[in-house]
Amino acid sequence: MSDIRSLAMACREAVPLLAMLDTPSKRALLNDMADALERRVDDVLDANAQDMQLAADKGVQGAMLDRLRLDQARVAGIAQALRDVAQLPDPVGVVTRRETLANGITVERVRIPLGVIAMIYEARPNVTADAAALCLMAGNAVILRGGSEAIHSNRAIAAALHEALHAHGLPTAAVTLVEDLSRETMVALLQLSDLVDLAIPRGGEGLIRFVTEHARVPVIKHYKGVCHLYVDRVADLTLALNLLIDGKTSRPGVCNALETVLVHRDVADAFLPGAAAALRERGVELRGDEATRALVPAAGPASEEDYAAEFLDLIIALRVVDSLDEAIAHIRRYGSDHTEVIATGDTSTAQRFVQSLRSAVVMVNASSRFSDGGQLGLGAEIGISTTRLHAYGPMGAESLTIERFVVRGEGQVRHPESRIP
Amino acid sequence: MSDIRSLAMACREAVPLLAMLDTPSKRALLNDMADALERRVDDVLDANAQDMQLAADKGVQGAMLDRLRLDQARVAGIAQALRDVAQLPDPVGVVTRRETLANGITVERVRIPLGVIAMIYEARPNVTADAAALCLMAGNAVILRGGSEAIHSNRAIAAALHEALHAHGLPTAAVTLVEDLSRETMVALLQLSDLVDLAIPRGGEGLIRFVTEHARVPVIKHYKGVCHLYVDRVADLTLALNLLIDGKTSRPGVCNALETVLVHRDVADAFLPGAAAALRERGVELRGDEATRALVPAAGPASEEDYAAEFLDLIIALRVVDSLDEAIAHIRRYGSDHTEVIATGDTSTAQRFVQSLRSAVVMVNASSRFSDGGQLGLGAEIGISTTRLHAYGPMGAESLTIERFVVRGEGQVRHPESRIP
Repeated sequence: MSDIRSLAMACREAVPLLAMLDTPSKRALLNDMADALERRVDDVLDANAQDMQLAADKGVQGAMLDRLRLDQARVAGIAQALRDVAQLPDPVGVVTRRETLANGITVERVRIPLGVIAMIYEARPNVTADAAALCLMAGNAVILRGGSEAIHSNRAIAAALHEALHAHGLPTAAVTLVEDLSRETMVALLQLSDLVDLAIPRGGEGLIRFVTEHARVPVIKHYKGVCHLYVDRVADLTLALNLLIDGKTSRPGVCNALETVLVHRDVADAFLPGAAAALRERGVELRGDEATRALVPAAGPASEEDYAAEFLDLIIALRVVDSLDEAIAHIRRYGSDHTEVIATGDTSTAQRFVQSLRSAVVMVNASSRFSDGGQLGLGAEIGISTTRLHAYGPMGAESLTIERFVVRGEGQVRHPESRIP
Repeated sequence: MSDIRSLAMACREAVPLLAMLDTPSKRALLNDMADALERRVDDVLDANAQDMQLAADKGVQGAMLDRLRLDQARVAGIAQALRDVAQLPDPVGVVTRRETLANGITVERVRIPLGVIAMIYEARPNVTADAAALCLMAGNAVILRGGSEAIHSNRAIAAALHEALHAHGLPTAAVTLVEDLSRETMVALLQLSDLVDLAIPRGGEGLIRFVTEHARVPVIKHYKGVCHLYVDRVADLTLALNLLIDGKTSRPGVCNALETVLVHRDVADAFLPGAAAALRERGVELRGDEATRALVPAAGPASEEDYAAEFLDLIIALRVVDSLDEAIAHIRRYGSDHTEVIATGDTSTAQRFVQSLRSAVVMVNASSRFSDGGQLGLGAEIGISTTRLHAYGPMGAESLTIERFVVRGEGQVRHPESRIP
């Protein structure tokens, strides 16, 4: 076992240096990382070929194998993402509030980096570069603990990032790749509460549960999206159908895809048969309650598990509800606080839907697929937080900083009798 | 053992009701709580007398016994604090940002409550009312787990709060007092990650460590303040002395009191003898390094432990440093990220001090004793966070909410091919 504590200490030593970097230096660093990655594309592809071979030998296939695969275009995409992050506004040093109080002291709230961020993720090697870039742009050091399937690819990508750090006179430990992927080392990492300021697990239920159970450092979970569309009784049904098709079929394997549709009883017969046909045309399997199946004979029965499921696949759960309140109760019961959508022409119904739910993202007449940092104007995202603390929903560079207080005075004291005459 | 899970479930059921309360309702509720507390003052004082007797029997004395004691004036003060919180701006529903994107969707960031907050604290019974008021004003339900020394007082105060909740048609479980104070029950509470959104431990090292080790729910620590004053070589030495006396002696038992003074070598002989005399006049014990003791013979030697100590008493550690950098290095090594102060007449030195430290509060020419939510314009505080996540430093009602995304469109989809022709 490599000594994870030593790795984290070296990473932490980079924190004051990174926190002091000005914006042009950080931008130059990230652009040089992109260049280094492109120069080393052959190394990266060779390493990735090793990972792909090992994964194939282990019987990995389908979407997981696809997430692991790199090619020239994907490496170019990773480099471009680094350059895109370099163009983002620098969140560090931003004064979010300034106030002068009655006693003459000025109180500012100023953004500073969080410190050391441990990113814990699964098979996608692009996360190695994406997460490092966002962490660095926000002045943080990062410990990357990716999945074992991508270890060769991650090592090759990290080598490119290190080349740029070194060229800028910065410690390569600012981006630390954990190569010992044992569970013991992950547990040890998650307990370094004096060295690690935040752990961000991004992955499936098993990973999230493991991190939550073992962490003594703060955790922001990037957990599943059981996203709902509620079709209200005064919805524009064509609009609702567009949201449904986009939400379910444009990329079913992602967390902002729709998993369940709730339809108001008054519009069920006008909406469901046509919607079901459109979904089936696109290869979507339907699972519904009895009222749905009465209108859509092709739908199979939906179980409790189906309503709680993040299918990440061309499967959808359907249910007819009697009212907005029933839809809200269903979402509260089965939802994962990620993203919910209402299709309605009624403003007060929309308002009640928004106010009654506490999901990270609530959409009125817009597709769940917009629930993404890039789509919502954050420029890039490190993921989508489902922890209702610090950051909730798409999480960009700003969410990798914290506001602190800077107070300036001219010798003010709290108790006047403290003054020396 | 009472069933803490059942208690937390009942508390959680109050969350949607509290989240929907409008501002006037919350204000009326808190004012009625204040009235109920004043009506029940005799019950509260009787209960407190029981706690005081038990504490005295156990040999509790000094500051701890004083923190536990209530009298007519202190109960009136608790009631007034409830009325003060009722006058604070309501953070729930505040739109912090609004943007219309190129595709026509509008993206708002809107504050919502966190949900269920578990407040874990020690002997001060006023926290029972203060924490409940701030949590409720921010639309949250709260589980209060106070110290065993104050259990009778806490129960009497909670009864008053419940009377007002009941009169407003709200479940009394919105403010749940844990009466089973066993460690097992605290551990069980801290592991209810499906029911509790945040735990706030406020107390000494033992409590904080216990909570951090056992929690699976998110934790924001309110930990110790090893606060520093650095007297720069171009400081106004009278101003510096005022900050020192105020910081050390105006209330030595609180977390924003000064614990260590670092003095630049160039001003050590001009500053230290006079400062030492002023401190000794006020009963402060001095512990210094060799350079300090050469100038101040009355100072005892300072150990490593002294520099890391939160004395919470009339004791101060002193040290002569050669430079700003040495002062910064000392604070990074021994500090607790709470509050640091520089006395200097040089703006660029001040700026470097601020930027090089990542403490929650950094003061330039102002007393550490202003590091307090009330003093810094938050109206009231639930405590001072030393966790660099979500809230850092004094934490008011706003920090008991989280920003989420509300998106409004007119049927926009992410992939145009999703549109039904």
